[in-house]
Amino acid sequence: MRDEEMVIEGRNVIIEAFRSGKTIDRLFILDGCQDGPVRTILREAKKTDCIINFVKKERLDQLSVTGRHQGVIAYIAAYKYGKVEDMLQNAKEKNEPPFLILLDGIEDPYNLGSIIRTADQAGAHGIIIPKRHAAGLTPAVAKASAGAINYMPVAKVTNLVKVIEDLKKQGMWFVCGDMSGETMYNLDLTGSIGVVIGSEGGGISRLIKEKCDLIASIPMSGNTGSLNASVAMGILSYEIVRQRLRRKIQQKLRR
Amino acid sequence: MRDEEMVIEGRNVIIEAFRSGKTIDRLFILDGCQDGPVRTILREAKKTDCIINFVKKERLDQLSVTGRHQGVIAYIAAYKYGKVEDMLQNAKEKNEPPFLILLDGIEDPYNLGSIIRTADQAGAHGIIIPKRHAAGLTPAVAKASAGAINYMPVAKVTNLVKVIEDLKKQGMWFVCGDMSGETMYNLDLTGSIGVVIGSEGGGISRLIKEKCDLIASIPMSGNTGSLNASVAMGILSYEIVRQRLRRKIQQKLRR
Repeated sequence: MRDEEMVIEGRNVIIEAFRSGKTIDRLFILDGCQDGPVRTILREAKKTDCIINFVKKERLDQLSVTGRHQGVIAYIAAYKYGKVEDMLQNAKEKNEPPFLILLDGIEDPYNLGSIIRTADQAGAHGIIIPKRHAAGLTPAVAKASAGAINYMPVAKVTNLVKVIEDLKKQGMWFVCGDMSGETMYNLDLTGSIGVVIGSEGGGISRLIKEKCDLIASIPMSGNTGSLNASVAMGILSYEIVRQRLRRKIQQKLRR
Repeated sequence: MRDEEMVIEGRNVIIEAFRSGKTIDRLFILDGCQDGPVRTILREAKKTDCIINFVKKERLDQLSVTGRHQGVIAYIAAYKYGKVEDMLQNAKEKNEPPFLILLDGIEDPYNLGSIIRTADQAGAHGIIIPKRHAAGLTPAVAKASAGAINYMPVAKVTNLVKVIEDLKKQGMWFVCGDMSGETMYNLDLTGSIGVVIGSEGGGISRLIKEKCDLIASIPMSGNTGSLNASVAMGILSYEIVRQRLRRKIQQKLRR
């Protein structure tokens, strides 16, 4: 994944990148390095969501493309991240109940891209991904999204659990996809909803599952354990689309 | 794709592969080569579904891994193909209306693998793919199927249109996913059904679309043109699952 992000190296270049407002995903700094420019970089990094790694010289040499890293290497996000508030605002403007997708550790860029594409078609207002252990907005993700990355806002947050708690206070419901739940066709998924999709390997983490109001299962009659994460997201999201469409028709008929 | 299939080279090895019943997907033969062993290989190849390509020596040298191709190179399928009759038989034994997936030129092994995985979970009885311009059962497909390739039969056919015609005579209905159709939620998809999914780039071909009884569209409110093929297959297949489940419940209630 990492080699598909933009890599920049050297003190001035990285300071400049921070100051011009570029989203830096990861920063690798020579452990123990304390001089002025490096302290400036650290200060700028701490204002953002950037992940900071202190590493040995050997590791930096390994990561370096140019061979002239001067003790700092940064990975720039290929695309800009959005904000959760803006997603809610967008839903409000469209007079729609918010519909968000939360990804609990999707690591495969192909899956993330495909999810962005599906979210766009299903009429979701945004996608929320965690800062750590997850694919970011790299060129590979952009490609798999078939251009949808330019329309679908993706927010990166430090703590998914906290975001869920905050959004619940604002009246949102959360549903996660998990085999242990009730068949999705039997659940009411028409309100302000956040759909949580688990990671490729581990599914939904316990802490997040506990925060969800509903656990929805996709009926499975197969011989293997699960569906591909981006397919599961598509199936669950379109059950929401179906229920929302039906609700709209019912409301029209009642008038 | 091709480099992930098993490559075998040389006359005796290839004759042996044919005789032991291995599924050979593609054969490359030195153009103009007419000696005994090559004629034997050609004769064996013509008994199967194998695609035969007559090529120049330069092309063979390029394809060769060992450098000792002796004028013939073959690509062996990593997995065995199934038969359409067996799929129908399997449905009959389970006392279920047949539910088949037909892929009109899916070329991405990742998509094919994911579709095999979803078909298994959705309770489909088999997948039918065309011989040409389509991904075959390579190790990459097996990996993306997460093991489902061992359970879900995949048949490879010369002419998808002819297969549809034959199966229609046996009482099957065909639905294809296409933007031009009726919203899938408004269609009755509960009977003996074949679902046709178009290719990543071109969608459903005209000839096949004309053969379909129903055209189902997935509602899309996005800014890009379409969904990923494996996600679209998942969404459409699970609409069938939903309708079949509902039908079962209704039938139980009536009793």
